[in-house]
Amino acid sequence: MNANGNRVRLGILGASGYTGAELLRILARHPGVDIKALTAEKNAGGTVAELFPHLAGMELPRLAKIAETDWNGLDTVFCCLPHSTTQEVIAGLPKRLKVVDLSADFRLEDAAMYAKWYGHEHYAPEMQKEAVYGMTELKREAVRSTRLCAVPGCYPTAAVLPLMPLVESKLIDADDIVIDAKSGVTGAGRELKLGSMFGEVAEGIHVYGIANHRHTAEIEQELGHAAGRKITVNFTPHLMPMNRGILSTIYVRLAKGATADTLRDALTKRYAGEPFVKVLPKGAAPATRHVRGSNLCLIGVFADRVAGRAIVVAAIDNLVKGASGQAVQNFNLMHGFPETTALEQQPLFP
Amino acid sequence: MNANGNRVRLGILGASGYTGAELLRILARHPGVDIKALTAEKNAGGTVAELFPHLAGMELPRLAKIAETDWNGLDTVFCCLPHSTTQEVIAGLPKRLKVVDLSADFRLEDAAMYAKWYGHEHYAPEMQKEAVYGMTELKREAVRSTRLCAVPGCYPTAAVLPLMPLVESKLIDADDIVIDAKSGVTGAGRELKLGSMFGEVAEGIHVYGIANHRHTAEIEQELGHAAGRKITVNFTPHLMPMNRGILSTIYVRLAKGATADTLRDALTKRYAGEPFVKVLPKGAAPATRHVRGSNLCLIGVFADRVAGRAIVVAAIDNLVKGASGQAVQNFNLMHGFPETTALEQQPLFP
Amino acid sequence: MNANGNRVRLGILGASGYTGAELLRILARHPGVDIKALTAEKNAGGTVAELFPHLAGMELPRLAKIAETDWNGLDTVFCCLPHSTTQEVIAGLPKRLKVVDLSADFRLEDAAMYAKWYGHEHYAPEMQKEAVYGMTELKREAVRSTRLCAVPGCYPTAAVLPLMPLVESKLIDADDIVIDAKSGVTGAGRELKLGSMFGEVAEGIHVYGIANHRHTAEIEQELGHAAGRKITVNFTPHLMPMNRGILSTIYVRLAKGATADTLRDALTKRYAGEPFVKVLPKGAAPATRHVRGSNLCLIGVFADRVAGRAIVVAAIDNLVKGASGQAVQNFNLMHGFPETTALEQQPLFP
Amino acid sequence: MNANGNRVRLGILGASGYTGAELLRILARHPGVDIKALTAEKNAGGTVAELFPHLAGMELPRLAKIAETDWNGLDTVFCCLPHSTTQEVIAGLPKRLKVVDLSADFRLEDAAMYAKWYGHEHYAPEMQKEAVYGMTELKREAVRSTRLCAVPGCYPTAAVLPLMPLVESKLIDADDIVIDAKSGVTGAGRELKLGSMFGEVAEGIHVYGIANHRHTAEIEQELGHAAGRKITVNFTPHLMPMNRGILSTIYVRLAKGATADTLRDALTKRYAGEPFVKVLPKGAAPATRHVRGSNLCLIGVFADRVAGRAIVVAAIDNLVKGASGQAVQNFNLMHGFPETTALEQQPLFP
Repeated sequence: MNANGNRVRLGILGASGYTGAELLRILARHPGVDIKALTAEKNAGGTVAELFPHLAGMELPRLAKIAETDWNGLDTVFCCLPHSTTQEVIAGLPKRLKVVDLSADFRLEDAAMYAKWYGHEHYAPEMQKEAVYGMTELKREAVRSTRLCAVPGCYPTAAVLPLMPLVESKLIDADDIVIDAKSGVTGAGRELKLGSMFGEVAEGIHVYGIANHRHTAEIEQELGHAAGRKITVNFTPHLMPMNRGILSTIYVRLAKGATADTLRDALTKRYAGEPFVKVLPKGAAPATRHVRGSNLCLIGVFADRVAGRAIVVAAIDNLVKGASGQAVQNFNLMHGFPETTALEQQPLFP
Repeated sequence: MNANGNRVRLGILGASGYTGAELLRILARHPGVDIKALTAEKNAGGTVAELFPHLAGMELPRLAKIAETDWNGLDTVFCCLPHSTTQEVIAGLPKRLKVVDLSADFRLEDAAMYAKWYGHEHYAPEMQKEAVYGMTELKREAVRSTRLCAVPGCYPTAAVLPLMPLVESKLIDADDIVIDAKSGVTGAGRELKLGSMFGEVAEGIHVYGIANHRHTAEIEQELGHAAGRKITVNFTPHLMPMNRGILSTIYVRLAKGATADTLRDALTKRYAGEPFVKVLPKGAAPATRHVRGSNLCLIGVFADRVAGRAIVVAAIDNLVKGASGQAVQNFNLMHGFPETTALEQQPLFP
Repeated sequence: MNANGNRVRLGILGASGYTGAELLRILARHPGVDIKALTAEKNAGGTVAELFPHLAGMELPRLAKIAETDWNGLDTVFCCLPHSTTQEVIAGLPKRLKVVDLSADFRLEDAAMYAKWYGHEHYAPEMQKEAVYGMTELKREAVRSTRLCAVPGCYPTAAVLPLMPLVESKLIDADDIVIDAKSGVTGAGRELKLGSMFGEVAEGIHVYGIANHRHTAEIEQELGHAAGRKITVNFTPHLMPMNRGILSTIYVRLAKGATADTLRDALTKRYAGEPFVKVLPKGAAPATRHVRGSNLCLIGVFADRVAGRAIVVAAIDNLVKGASGQAVQNFNLMHGFPETTALEQQPLFP
Repeated sequence: MNANGNRVRLGILGASGYTGAELLRILARHPGVDIKALTAEKNAGGTVAELFPHLAGMELPRLAKIAETDWNGLDTVFCCLPHSTTQEVIAGLPKRLKVVDLSADFRLEDAAMYAKWYGHEHYAPEMQKEAVYGMTELKREAVRSTRLCAVPGCYPTAAVLPLMPLVESKLIDADDIVIDAKSGVTGAGRELKLGSMFGEVAEGIHVYGIANHRHTAEIEQELGHAAGRKITVNFTPHLMPMNRGILSTIYVRLAKGATADTLRDALTKRYAGEPFVKVLPKGAAPATRHVRGSNLCLIGVFADRVAGRAIVVAAIDNLVKGASGQAVQNFNLMHGFPETTALEQQPLFP
């Protein structure tokens, strides 16, 4: 039950992908929700267990088409649809529904920026105004009261959480940030593509999307807010052979007087008491395997041999804190549940 | 709280290995226990977080030596010690303590059989008598009332659960059973050995322990009980590049009149209502990735092209249903908790 | 140059898949061939380097459509086309060309059997008569003089090589053979399919194609020849997270008087002097990682605990001895090159 | 045969590690060498096949202790010994022998620098003077005439090859170089260590050795020569779940007037005609899987979104170009063989 003593009736739109399945895994432990509708256009009529046998133990409604969904029976929808499709679907929903959107469609505040990065005019620019960019720890109050929460991208989560407090406090030079990110394969979703085939990924690593990955826009938007001006960052993603996880190794230039210790102290203070963001003690390095399956973000800060520079490292599970976990965290705030509800489980290692 | 309204005070002996860490992960969600003591001889004085950073979020006692442990503060101990050491340690514990033992030391009822397979006389043969072999679904009542529960080995769990009902009901020939098992690497523990190094395991598979793996003794003991006589089985383990999981592909000869469908029906009936053992519908094949991180055992039965034969396949997570999960399942029974307590989470896929 | 002092002019039809690329890798070291034509219908006009950057260092003709190929400029073609397509293409080639076919189309001698397993009538049944099933070590003389060599499937290679001599010599019961095979993912080719995605394969194993995998037909055909009558075998494939490799663990019933040692001796004698098939000494177990990238087949024989039974294990690289390597081995015989030409390289480990 | 028509008699000291095995794999294809001695202190008396079953097909001498080696029978030794041990062993060899050393012992020209990074005074500082740092493409003439070749480390190879020409030509700012490197597990050798266990590496990535990895010293030495002064670089290694491969993603600040295209042109020109170093065309990104098992180094150059910056990416196989392959390349030069001898094979993909 939420703060008002009612169970929340949920729908998940686009339940056939990895983020949809991950929402179901997490929500299975949520005491205050009833999953009432699941959509999957191509698999309508089928069951979740057919698509995701690992969830066969859950009692769930059949998959249906969006057009068949009875919105009256729902209080909130999670959207796990492709970008651009999402705008149209969400624009058509009753305004009464709360929406937690995992797509990129409502993350960029500036419609021109959306058009530039996504290649077409936004279909619901007026709705953009009411959207809150749900990087929970940084936007908690706004999330609490929004109707439409845009869940941040996986890469931005692993970059903005460690960087935002440093840019805000001017401890680092916002014009000299290099974000070298390494991601597991589920970040690319469950659609068939050559680049996600086992033979093309196992036993190797490669860089991709250099200087043009769409998540750059989110990172620059949020860090730009912190800097109080437009900034440009280097963001360079790599694909590596693991299912889950993002490690961001971030190279920064220190402001005058700042040191790695200063940075670590600032982050430690900023995230003190946070249940999911943990700043590691000096010398400890984050590893993706230590957050697998959990909503944690681990952050470490290190001195560089190069004078005036430091290294900030962050690790998340891209499907949890980078997607469905943060979605549930925001959902909890939006409905008055304790923020950690359904997200308490420890990481799975090895 | 348990059935009597008290929280159970726990110790974990040998907390530095994978099964110890997995116990902690699972027990973190258990509402009725307090973890009061953790031992690790080599790492005494240190913390769990140093050995297992993924558990840094738990509040836990420091690691200590067994000799330093205050048994008065404990109600139950989980033992994750090496075989033979275990016997000596358990023999020295106050008789008041309940013991859930994850080693092989109290699994074999016949001391001569222990000596044969483990290479030395048993040090506590008198305690063997009070031990119950904790294959939960098959020994539920005995587990409930025992003081000393011997948690089955990982391979035996993935072989005995699917085979026991078939041997008992004489639907298969107990003298013609071939168990081809494939295991992830954590089954070998966290001790340093060449065979567990990444370079020696990744991108390959090999067979080992042919005709002499110690888990054979447990399998033959339990299936022998079911058959009402001594039997010999083929058990052939393989090591493959994954962290968790065992898949048993079991080749059996059908009794006269039996078919794959008969077998599936018998298993379905036997395990109806079980929360963790699931017999899949005709045509569905178990996969280890669908049980990862969960206490599930999935079983499938298939007709063979060869007349008079069938194929039974089972999948478990070796660290959960094959070790720490089944340990907690037994613990719950021994203390009057609902059997599924702390074991409800869905599998982690991908 | 071949035995006649001429370089052989080659075409590879269907060069965009893994077996095509593997042929190129191997043939790069062949001193007697010129690669004159490469086809890839969808990628016609492009280069091999675009599809396979690892081969960018080779000088190769552009990819073209089959219809554009100048057959006059070729002496031999390797066919890496899908089954059924292959029949039509090969039937249309000038009879003067030698053909090494890696598809399943000319492996089954009995057209009715082809129709049963592949779901349609064979389109070129008359050509089937001139085809030789190229399990090289077992058909060397026939391969030498054929115009059309059907390269065996990967699974059949890892099953027939170890079993054929045992069935022929009646050391085992041909009616009680269980072949449990574990394959890497490249065996499924480079076509997009959900089951070959990294997220669906990594960190797990599953069984598939139980009692109906098409390779069963080849195995039964060849072992049936050895037995002198129709036989039925159990063949059960598994998919596991590695790029390359097949491990067959084969469970057999011994003929009266036979032992594991007898079997090993028979295989050792049969394959004495073979450059690629190696029977390991007693106690040594084959591992796929020890044949990676090579044309080797390793075989080990073990006693079973069950009286009257034995275990035979074989390991190959599915893309080399299980496909392109064996293709080149046959090609060498067909053209009078030393059989090992271009196949001499040691395995790549780790 | 070498330029003088003689076969070179080789010894490999320390043949029980991955680099020793890789030397054997490569040299198996070398027409001008005889492997006459192999040492392995702990495994003396045994065979290579026992340690490395994948090499069982090679005819090789038994493993012996260094003290037992007959130096008279050798012309050249490859040293694959641990650092510091190496110095003592090499100092004790007859001066007549040529030495190709894969350890770190003779890479640093400045004995004080050695002492600083390796924690003890160098034991053979006088020999350091005759050593040549064998980054082949950059030191070809010096290598040709040296008696003692220090083969560069794996990480330095993947950093210095792409950076050296850029620093030399002053196209980039030598004081603002960030090298983010990702390595496979074999880079850590075959010694038992927790960090190399499958369970600790699979399904994850972590950073290590931040600001203190020993390979930094080599990189700074070589780039310092190019810059004509002492420089300091950021070098940050990561360990990831693959057997082989290093990917360096290098972030640089452009000199005035320079662009990514300028950099690519300079590298293309510098490495034109090189058999192993390949600068990719604009837009193409190196991947470690495209160099696996080969002596190739692939380099790509990319514009950054951040003004005045560029990204240089390099990929090698750490065991080949990063160790044993480059060792053989240098050996070929030292003995007058064609530089590519035994190194011609194409990469193994997948």
